[in-house]
Amino acid sequence: MKIAIAGAGAMGSRFGFMLHQAGNDVILIDKWEDHINEIRKNGLKVNLNGEMFTSYIPIYFPEEIAETKQKIDLILLFTKAMQLEDMLSALSTAIHSETKVLCLLNGIGHEDVIEKFMPKDNILIGITMWTAGLAGAGKAELIGDGSVELQNLAPKGKDYALEVVKILDQAGLHCKYSPDVRYSIWEKACVNGTVNGTCALLDATIAELGQTDVAVSIIKNILHEFVLVAKQERLILDEAAVLQKIIKTFDPNGIGNHYPSMHQDLVKNHRLTEVDYINGVVVRKGEKYGIDTPFCTLLTELIHAKEQLIGAK
Amino acid sequence: MKIAIAGAGAMGSRFGFMLHQAGNDVILIDKWEDHINEIRKNGLKVNLNGEMFTSYIPIYFPEEIAETKQKIDLILLFTKAMQLEDMLSALSTAIHSETKVLCLLNGIGHEDVIEKFMPKDNILIGITMWTAGLAGAGKAELIGDGSVELQNLAPKGKDYALEVVKILDQAGLHCKYSPDVRYSIWEKACVNGTVNGTCALLDATIAELGQTDVAVSIIKNILHEFVLVAKQERLILDEAAVLQKIIKTFDPNGIGNHYPSMHQDLVKNHRLTEVDYINGVVVRKGEKYGIDTPFCTLLTELIHAKEQLIGAK
Repeated sequence: MKIAIAGAGAMGSRFGFMLHQAGNDVILIDKWEDHINEIRKNGLKVNLNGEMFTSYIPIYFPEEIAETKQKIDLILLFTKAMQLEDMLSALSTAIHSETKVLCLLNGIGHEDVIEKFMPKDNILIGITMWTAGLAGAGKAELIGDGSVELQNLAPKGKDYALEVVKILDQAGLHCKYSPDVRYSIWEKACVNGTVNGTCALLDATIAELGQTDVAVSIIKNILHEFVLVAKQERLILDEAAVLQKIIKTFDPNGIGNHYPSMHQDLVKNHRLTEVDYINGVVVRKGEKYGIDTPFCTLLTELIHAKEQLIGAK
Repeated sequence: MKIAIAGAGAMGSRFGFMLHQAGNDVILIDKWEDHINEIRKNGLKVNLNGEMFTSYIPIYFPEEIAETKQKIDLILLFTKAMQLEDMLSALSTAIHSETKVLCLLNGIGHEDVIEKFMPKDNILIGITMWTAGLAGAGKAELIGDGSVELQNLAPKGKDYALEVVKILDQAGLHCKYSPDVRYSIWEKACVNGTVNGTCALLDATIAELGQTDVAVSIIKNILHEFVLVAKQERLILDEAAVLQKIIKTFDPNGIGNHYPSMHQDLVKNHRLTEVDYINGVVVRKGEKYGIDTPFCTLLTELIHAKEQLIGAK
């Protein structure tokens, strides 16, 4: 079974490396030229919890995939949300009727994009709690522990989902089948949707945000909009429990001292954020269902204003 | 008639200087020690559109006023909104039954504070379009043109209002009596409430904000809350006209290239902002009238979070 990691940044490098180490037939696909050249020349250098590895995994630009004429059996998606459609387009010649895809991207509703390229039966969705970093082109920093939850999008996909759970779990990725992965996806989006944009705007770590007097009020208001919109999709979030989960992220002994990804994108790297796939989705779904989402609206627009002001790309 | 300038920062220095030059009996009251020492020693140095002046105007700390046993006939209020109550407390021994006060502070609802210290009949409210800057302690930069509009808060105060219009106008302050100054105060608050906090959060000039794709959407949403709340106080704002007035501030040939005052307070000087007296008032009045004000709520809370994160005082 050929597994393609579509988007071989930090997290893609983790999954690619661990699956490759476990003996799977893995290829990486990415657009970052320096990263690709470095991996082709010197291999992927990995710091796995302090132990150093060099892994020679084939890596391609998306547009090279058509030329290689290879067929891919399983695609693990790790692009930025806004690059998802372009990536799937580039891989279309490698996708056959049995190709499956597993989407572990942050945010909500990516299956709507994926369904343009393959039948619903072939789509798996999930979340991961793994973290990963890049210390430069070709250099992955894989520190700490994590897990994966996944589920088939359509009933027919369950057997395959269980097979993928096994493959990931055997590679040490701590994967389990989830009977209700949509709940986990929305719950994670609630954490990201309340903390990420706010920290990016305020130039604060999660713990710093958490120490302000207004943090809980800001979070409650945004969270409530996620809950109302999810309800329209017959997903009943336990609002009090999710709030506690968000408040727990403030803990400096946990992830509190980190800048969330949207802050890293915007403030540190001057890149476009994924806000449209987190808070922006709630705004769009709110419009569709006739639910006001002023907090997500203002937050999304302020992030877009900041992106434009700093010339994010 | 003894005129006290309560709060002799940039704008207070302008009014104090121009009234003093016109021959009025003026005193300044402020809390900034270096500023007071400099003015006492070397006079107030003024750059009035390129022409230099030195003006020897008596200046006091608020707590010195009681010792001097002087009575004040007219108080011009130019404190920060959050210092208003303390200032009036400090001046209470100098306030007699005929003392009048003119409030030209930005924001809404300062009369509620002032009424604790004197009868409604003695209160004048208004707005000014003058600008002013300080180049350091004792150094005022008074560039450009401006105007004042004022009105009595209660019907009985009209004669006195007309008298004050005359005094200010004779000092070159381009003052006129307004038959509906509340409209002007709310309109100015709409401009400040949509542009100031947004620019402070985004670290942008007014023109930079205006150039973003989302500026008009952000402004429309915030403005609408001002309009709904004002309506509850029987003030009907022309929403389309106010929107155009706000959009006009984006013009780099006008005030567009300036950072608004809230940005100066927060980003440049790490001081507390007046957001509670602009957007915060709309939130509090909205609660009173049962009107949702999510946009003003989130903006106010984000500004407060930023104040706390940077240790603003």
